Amino acid sequence: MEHTVSAFEQELKVLGGRVAEMGGLAERLIHDAIDALKRSDPDLARTVIERDRLLDRLQRETEDRAILVIARRQPMALDLREVVASMRIASELERVGDLAKNIAKRVVAIQGAVLNKRLVVGVEHIADIAAEQLKTVLDAFSDRDDAAAHLVRQRDGEIDALYTSLFRELLTYMMEDPRNISLCTHLLFCAKNVERIGDHATNIAETVHYVITGIAFDDERPKADTTADDPIEGGALP
Amino acid sequence: MEHTVSAFEQELKVLGGRVAEMGGLAERLIHDAIDALKRSDPDLARTVIERDRLLDRLQRETEDRAILVIARRQPMALDLREVVASMRIASELERVGDLAKNIAKRVVAIQGAVLNKRLVVGVEHIADIAAEQLKTVLDAFSDRDDAAAHLVRQRDGEIDALYTSLFRELLTYMMEDPRNISLCTHLLFCAKNVERIGDHATNIAETVHYVITGIAFDDERPKADTTADDPIEGGALP
Repeated sequence: MEHTVSAFEQELKVLGGRVAEMGGLAERLIHDAIDALKRSDPDLARTVIERDRLLDRLQRETEDRAILVIARRQPMALDLREVVASMRIASELERVGDLAKNIAKRVVAIQGAVLNKRLVVGVEHIADIAAEQLKTVLDAFSDRDDAAAHLVRQRDGEIDALYTSLFRELLTYMMEDPRNISLCTHLLFCAKNVERIGDHATNIAETVHYVITGIAFDDERPKADTTADDPIEGGALP
Repeated sequence: MEHTVSAFEQELKVLGGRVAEMGGLAERLIHDAIDALKRSDPDLARTVIERDRLLDRLQRETEDRAILVIARRQPMALDLREVVASMRIASELERVGDLAKNIAKRVVAIQGAVLNKRLVVGVEHIADIAAEQLKTVLDAFSDRDDAAAHLVRQRDGEIDALYTSLFRELLTYMMEDPRNISLCTHLLFCAKNVERIGDHATNIAETVHYVITGIAFDDERPKADTTADDPIEGGALP
């Protein structure tokens, strides 16, 4: 029995290590995707696209391993929650990698274009906060720190507010000069992608809370991107 | 032993039923979100937003149930794949519901705006194909029909081509008259959301293939949305 328990703990440790590895890779992909955007560096962007495949593979392996642990060890209560959480967080991180990859693809698409620094800085600023949120919540998972997870969840509103403000600024640029439209549309999707990275950090915060307490946050999550809630402003419509 | 086997089969049946229920609900949400867009009906859109919560709850319940089945029955090989597949498909369907909800939120945002019918028909056409793909792949799951799953996977390219074409058309409208920009941006996100529903149908097709054969499709998936791969066309950039 002693043996079984420590084998389980060993397996949990491996799962936790796998999640930490995925987290480090996801943070790196975000950083490099944004760096590629800032520097208009399609080669760096291509390495992000390529390295995202590793994250996909790690996610599948983590899921396979978690399921085998459940089948072999039949963990209950907290132990089961720990295993399920690893699987869920791996899935969130895989999606974060996809979002970084999407940004990188747009960098390849807009290569050569001279970007408005102010707009790129806007995207970068949101990405920095999203990456920090991701790092904080992964630390909260490894430290089993419910309070830190709560803070991540609350701070998501800041990302949403910045996104909404950048969204409006991008629309303004498009309206000022139609030649801006194509590039601004790509930046709009980049901004949306980083905003969604923040949502995944929030999802992970909810998983951390569930691991520690065994219950889901029961109040509604603080609201996300509100641009879809904004009424259209003025002007004739197509 | 006989008893154990049939109890497992009973549990599989319940899981399959839950997935089918979620699939029906997801198809309904897509249909109603697009209907709300066509008819500029914010009330219908609000019911979509509300009903998406049921899909979220069903997904959590399906995951919980699948994990308990794995822990209690310790299924192997095909049996294990069946349970894991239910869990994965439930997760894809939950994401489809989120995408329908995002469209519905934009309908609420643009209420009162007179939409260009041609553009809305473009979004609707993609949504129809995506919904059909979803229905076909869920039937393929319930019939364990690998050939049908393959066809779904191949047909995703059609959705991507339509999306790329609509994306360009929307950009053209924006460039013609800056007053179109705000509304076209919302339609652009709606179109992107339906394109992503198609991606989830493809993910489900891959899961169906994995259930039946025990192996993942090893070739790369036919490529998705290529607008991120398009070079920016002409004009000064912001």
